Parts: sequence; C-alpha cells; structure tokens
Amino acid sequence: MAKGIISFDTTIVAPATGTGAAISVIRISGKDSFTLLNKIFRPRVKDARVKAEAEGFRIVYGDIVENKELIDDVLVSFFKAPNSYTGEDSVEISFHASPYILQKILQMLVSRGASPARPGEFTQRAYLNGKMDLSQAEAVADLIASETEASHRLAINQMRGTYSDEINKLREKMLHFASLIELELDFGEEDVEFADLKELKIMVQEIKSYTDSLADSFRYGNVIKNGVPVAIVGKPNSGKSTLLNALLKDDRAIVSEIPGTTRDVIEDTIIIDGVLFRFIDTAGLRETADIIESLGIRKTYQKIQQSEIVLLMADASDTAEVINKAYRAVSDQVSDSNKELILLVNKTDLLNAELIDDLKNSLTCKDTNCVMISALEGSGLDVLTSYLTKYIANSGAGNSALVVTNLRHYNALMQCSESLSRLIDGIDRQMTEDLLAMDLRQAIHYLGEITGEISTDDILGNIFKNFCIGK
Amino acid sequence: MAKGIISFDTTIVAPATGTGAAISVIRISGKDSFTLLNKIFRPRVKDARVKAEAEGFRIVYGDIVENKELIDDVLVSFFKAPNSYTGEDSVEISFHASPYILQKILQMLVSRGASPARPGEFTQRAYLNGKMDLSQAEAVADLIASETEASHRLAINQMRGTYSDEINKLREKMLHFASLIELELDFGEEDVEFADLKELKIMVQEIKSYTDSLADSFRYGNVIKNGVPVAIVGKPNSGKSTLLNALLKDDRAIVSEIPGTTRDVIEDTIIIDGVLFRFIDTAGLRETADIIESLGIRKTYQKIQQSEIVLLMADASDTAEVINKAYRAVSDQVSDSNKELILLVNKTDLLNAELIDDLKNSLTCKDTNCVMISALEGSGLDVLTSYLTKYIANSGAGNSALVVTNLRHYNALMQCSESLSRLIDGIDRQMTEDLLAMDLRQAIHYLGEITGEISTDDILGNIFKNFCIGK
Repeated sequence: MAKGIISFDTTIVAPATGTGAAISVIRISGKDSFTLLNKIFRPRVKDARVKAEAEGFRIVYGDIVENKELIDDVLVSFFKAPNSYTGEDSVEISFHASPYILQKILQMLVSRGASPARPGEFTQRAYLNGKMDLSQAEAVADLIASETEASHRLAINQMRGTYSDEINKLREKMLHFASLIELELDFGEEDVEFADLKELKIMVQEIKSYTDSLADSFRYGNVIKNGVPVAIVGKPNSGKSTLLNALLKDDRAIVSEIPGTTRDVIEDTIIIDGVLFRFIDTAGLRETADIIESLGIRKTYQKIQQSEIVLLMADASDTAEVINKAYRAVSDQVSDSNKELILLVNKTDLLNAELIDDLKNSLTCKDTNCVMISALEGSGLDVLTSYLTKYIANSGAGNSALVVTNLRHYNALMQCSESLSRLIDGIDRQMTEDLLAMDLRQAIHYLGEITGEISTDDILGNIFKNFCIGK
Repeated sequence: MAKGIISFDTTIVAPATGTGAAISVIRISGKDSFTLLNKIFRPRVKDARVKAEAEGFRIVYGDIVENKELIDDVLVSFFKAPNSYTGEDSVEISFHASPYILQKILQMLVSRGASPARPGEFTQRAYLNGKMDLSQAEAVADLIASETEASHRLAINQMRGTYSDEINKLREKMLHFASLIELELDFGEEDVEFADLKELKIMVQEIKSYTDSLADSFRYGNVIKNGVPVAIVGKPNSGKSTLLNALLKDDRAIVSEIPGTTRDVIEDTIIIDGVLFRFIDTAGLRETADIIESLGIRKTYQKIQQSEIVLLMADASDTAEVINKAYRAVSDQVSDSNKELILLVNKTDLLNAELIDDLKNSLTCKDTNCVMISALEGSGLDVLTSYLTKYIANSGAGNSALVVTNLRHYNALMQCSESLSRLIDGIDRQMTEDLLAMDLRQAIHYLGEITGEISTDDILGNIFKNFCIGK
C-alpha cells in the first residue's frame, strides 16, 4: 500500500458512540478539523490548545460555547495528521451524553461548515489515505459486530493484516508467473521457452488448491461470524424446549458475570466456548407439531437444509425400534452433506441405569453420535456441548490458519479459482501464451479486489454503506 | 468546599458510553488506575505511557492483550490526580464498540482487582473529593437527561455553580445572623442587646421571602425539567388527535434536521421553542368519549388537575352558545388555580371568513385566550404555539434568575421556610434568644443540605442510586 495522504475537501463530523450513558463522543476529521473546533471551543488553559494541535495525542479541557452561552464543558482529544485513525487532522469531543447537547454540537459544527459523515466515511478515508487496506477496513465493521470470542478472533486477525499478508503473498506469486509468461510473450518469436509447460501447470495447480482451501474456509468462517445454525428435530413433546431452556440458562449465567454490562438477550442463540450457536426457527418449533414420522413435511426438511448441525431428539420411553427408524430417516436426509447429525435420547430420568444401557445397546447409531440426556435434570448436557464445540474445532481450525469470513472475499476467491481452472485447461490444450496470460491476469485481478489493490467506486460504496455512522 | 482528596481503597471501572456505535469507552478511577491498566495494556511507543502518567491529559495508542492474544487496539486517555473528573488518577480506554470487547476488557480489569462501579460512583467520588458540591453533582444527572434547550440551560447553570453560589450567599447571611444571636446569648446576662428585635424580624422576613420565591420557582423548574403538562379537553370528534398529529409533525421535522442523530420519538411530547410539552393521557383521550357537557366526569377533571395549561377544543360548526357554555364550565374548574385556559375553535375550514368573524364576536372568552384554528389545514397553529411559549416565558423567567428544578431542593427550601416562620413567630412572641437561635440553626441546616455542606449517607445514597453506571 503506497497510497499517500489524500486531501479531501470536506471535514466530516458524526457521533461516534451510542446514546444513553454517561458520556458521548463526536468525531471530526479533515483538514479544517482544528479551525472548525476553534470556532466553538474555549479551552480553560489558553496555551493548551496550541500545544495539542502541534503535537497531537493530547487532551484539552474546556467549554463549548455559542453566543456566550455554555453548551457543555468537554474534553477534546487532538490527533495531528498523519497520526490519526483517518490519517487526517482530527478531534474527538467527549461531552455529557445528553441528546440535546449531542444535537446542538453537531448543528454548531455543520452550520460552521462541517459535513455530516456518511456511514463508514471515517474508515473509508483511512483506507483511501493508506492507513489500512480494504480487507482490514471490512474487519473493523466485523470487529464492532463481534459478539463472541471466536468471531472476535477472526475479525481482529483480519484487522491486523495477517489475512491481507497471506492474500498479498499469493498475489505476488501469481504476479511472478505472469511476468514469466509475459516475458515468454515478448520473446515468443525468438523461441525463448521459459519453462516446461508441465512445470507451470503444477505450480498453477498448487496455487489453485490453496485458493480453493481458502474459499472452503468460508463455510467455517461464515458460521463463526454469523453463528452455527443448529436444527433440533423430533416428535412433539420430546423435550426440545426444555433442552433449549437448559442450554440458555447456562449461557445467561455466564454472560451476566460482570455487573454493569448489559446484553440484549436474543432468544435461542447460545454462546458455548466462545462460539455462537443459532437454533433455527425454534420459536415455531415449540408450537407446531412436526412429526418425525412424516418426514415429507417441508418444514423439518428446510430446517435441516439450513443447518450445519442436526440434533435429533428422541424419547427414552420409546422403543429402540422407533428411535432407530427416526434416526435412519433423518440420517438419509443428512448423509450427502457435511452436516453433523447427533441423536439425543432425552428423558433418561424416566428409566433406571440398566434400562438406559439396554436401550443404548440396541441403537444403530454410532456411539460418538449418540448422547443420552435428561434435559429436565441437566444430565448429559456437558457431553452434548462438548460434541458441539468439537464439531466446530474439527471443521475449521485444522484446515488453515487463514479463514475467510466475508462473502465478497469468498466470491472473489471463487472467481480467481475459475480463472485458474481455465488457465490449467489452457495449458492442457496448449493455448498460446497471450491467452494463458489473460486468464492469469484475471485471477490476479480478483485477488486484488480482496485487499483493495483493485477497487471501484461500486465496490467501495457497497462495503461502506453497511458501516455505522461515526466509524 | 474544603474537602481534600479522599483516598478510596477501591479502583472502580465501568462502561461510560452507550453501545451500538463505532467506539465505546471504559472508565477507570482510583489509586490503582495506572497499575491496573498496565497489566493489560501494551503501548506501541514504549515511553509514551510514562510521560502520560506523569503529566496527564495525554493519549497513548496501544494494544489490550491477554495471554499474548490481541483483544483490541485502543486509545487510552490518562488523567493524573487531582486533575480528573473524580479528582483521582484515572484512565479512559477507547476501543472498537463490540459487545465482546467491552465485556472482555471489563472482565480482565475486574479479575485483576478493579471493582465494578456502582451507579453514579464516579460523580460521588468527585463530590467527596471536593471537585463539585452536591447540587452540582445532581446537575450532572439532569444535564445528561436534558432533551430540550430550556431544561439543558437550567441544568448547566446548576452544574456551573451559579445556583450553589446563590444558596451559599443566603446561607452565609443566615450564619451571620446566627453568630449575632449567639453573641447575644453569650453576653445575655450582661444585658448587651445586639439589635432591635424589630430590625431582626425585618431581616428574617426578607430572607424568608427570598427563600419562598426560590421554592415557588420549583413549579416552573419542574415543568421545564419534566415537560409542561397540557390537557386537551373537548367533546368527541372536535379534532384533538388531528391537532396532536399536526403539532407532532412539525416537531419531528425539527429534530431530524441533522443526519446521524437518532432520537427516540416519544408519542405526544412536543418540543416548542426549546421547551418540552407533555400532552396528558392523550392516548386514552383519543379513544374515550369524555363529553364536556357532563363535566362531573372524573377523568376530565383529573386531567385538568394534572395540567399547567388546559386546551379546550370546540367545534366551529357548533353555535356560540354551546361553545360559551363549555368554556364557562371548564373556566370554573380552572379559575382558582394558576392554570392557563385556552379556547381552540377548530374546523374553521368548514366556515367562510364572515361566519368565523361572527362566531368569534359572539364568544364570551377574552380575545387573548381564544384561537381560531383548523387542525386539518394547519392554520392558526402558529398562534397556538406562540401562546404556549408565552405562558412559559411569563410564568418562569420573570420571577428569579435562580430556578429550583429538584424536588429534594424544594423540600429543603420549604423546611427552611418553615423554620424561618417559626423564628419570626418566636420574635413576635419575644421568646428567648436560645430558642430563636435553634430555629435559625435549623433553617441553616436545611439550606446546607442543598449544596451538601450537610449530608448523610441516606441523602447521598438516594441521590446517586438514580445515576447511570459509568457516571
């Protein structure tokens, strides 16, 4: 990234924090940040401001004043270009979090020439000023949205640039090939053959295989980012809602450990070992009676389709035959996918230990996929949660240190992979170098879209419109 | 206020901003603030922290790290005692506003020895450390809650200390009297009479009259702070809901002027010229049919009782006789109070100009209290809103520069006034100086409660429990 600091005409302003607390922060960025601030701000110590403007990373205490009337006493943080988030001169005003003061200060700044910032405009400026690349900018939004340890870790690795480094390395490798092929082209007439075509093919195949494994990681990355979809199926009254409540109860106990943190409790999403699990359409599931016997029912089918993990809930008071039949039916639906199917035999509290063993021994499903539980008494739940987290660990962590969490990146990787396929095909069919070079250039182009080496206004517009204001 | 910096044992931590935005801030205050921060924070520039700790009012960029894992890159603001909000060493950590990061950093600090702050604990420490008096501390909460220009102005004046200064001046005057009376007591045996009792009485009466005018201002201060209660009464279908919608529409247009500011639209509260008006029980009013003819109806009566301003809504298609009768009936209920009664003759769009004039000339109500409107077409609404704001201007601003907005202060002033009454009574009845001195000392005590010269744990507990966490 060799972009310099771009001089934007406008100086932008926006609230940067949420409302309804002790303090709020307004952020200003752009070449007129200091001038605009000075029109409304009176420092208590006169020289403090000059020093802060010259050095940056300083705080000045003072008053926001309009027509000699005090609006609030505030703390202003000064950041001098290029040492700021955007790379521009910028200030943050920290004030008493009243809706009136927030609106008043924004009005005062806008009426004196500041522009209200568009969503993500601060981060967009940071990108355009070369403070971060595009995938890092996208990671900022992911980081803010992250609710779990796992999604947080992916976002922060992407924000730090580990992800971009890897993509850039791959891209450089391809650029190297491209230069070899173009060299070949230049001297084509003179019969300077740079390398064995077979050798080239092997190298391209290696790159394609890595690109594909990256694209594959999206499946994992996406569930980590948005939650692992879990379907619970089973005949009515098998205890689905009791199970959910038991799991939710544990979760709530964990998140309310620290007083002073509030969390919107979202019904039927549960964080286990730092991973978010989403229980699909369980509200409906609690009311409707979808009977496992009539598996044609579209609802159960759809639920399974949308999930990564299927929990089949059976009743310990049923016979092994009934349970095996249900397992076979669901298993057929799941078999041709990567989905995990776990059989939960519930209500073991109704049986004695001997009967439980008898039942378990008569079940056809493999031991590792069968858990005897009592949702009511909470027994066996630890085994279930360990299965859930093990599935995630196996599906993701093993594959690659690099995980794709972003649909835009996934699409770019898929397009890159397609170009590489065409290239391999071209080599096989002994196409001319200029046609091969075209495919390779396209592959390079798609990789460049990820980090923003290649970007269009459309791409940027789509990315930043989903940011919150003030970021 | 001669309180020194008190050394609290605990170092407190809490989120200081709302959630759901670009950045969030966690505040730490107490003697171990810097030590605690250093356990989790790695500055990017090594020496920056030492300088920031020594000087304060500096910002350091760095990483929050646990077990070598990056939690977030953050900006930390350093404040060195006594130059901080609380008067203690304190820091503010500004981070990416993710619910996970917020909870994580809080957990990291608490597990290393920080205490989760109670509501208002930062401001309580500021008070106990002598950074502000009690009425200023209360003003902080009012300031944060202020939604309108008028309530904001009252809160900020109180926070600046203008209010406390005035209360303290009054208290000093009384202390001076008290010392004179006590002198009298000391030398009582020797017949050293300090002053004519009549003179003393006049002075006490002056003070009592000022105290009473302050207490009177609470009526105004309270409506400015909590909104001016307005009752709309009238027979069904006279257009009450159309009027409200017309007024609300104007208001919404005003508050949404700046993009990026969100505001919870509270149904049926309207800001006009910086003053909040609350329309009482209008939801019920829209449905129920309270007929002005049967004025015995308790509901209409209660509504009028709770209001400062009564809008009587009449229908222009009714005869002057019907309207006059309704006006007389409501007027009787309002007459023995300070309430303002305004007659709105609605639906003037149904009549031509001549008929409107005829009707208006036949009405008994005084011109200034009668407005011809069409809620449907919006005509006459500007006259109505100017009446509403004029009423507020007349009722409050004229009386006193000092306005009481706080029920606790009002109660203290009333108790002070009662003590002064007893004192005047005592002078009249030629009681002994020691009894007079007792009443005076009580009056002084109550005034001292307002600014917190006199305070108990109960008083403090009641005040700060209503603060938000992080303030």
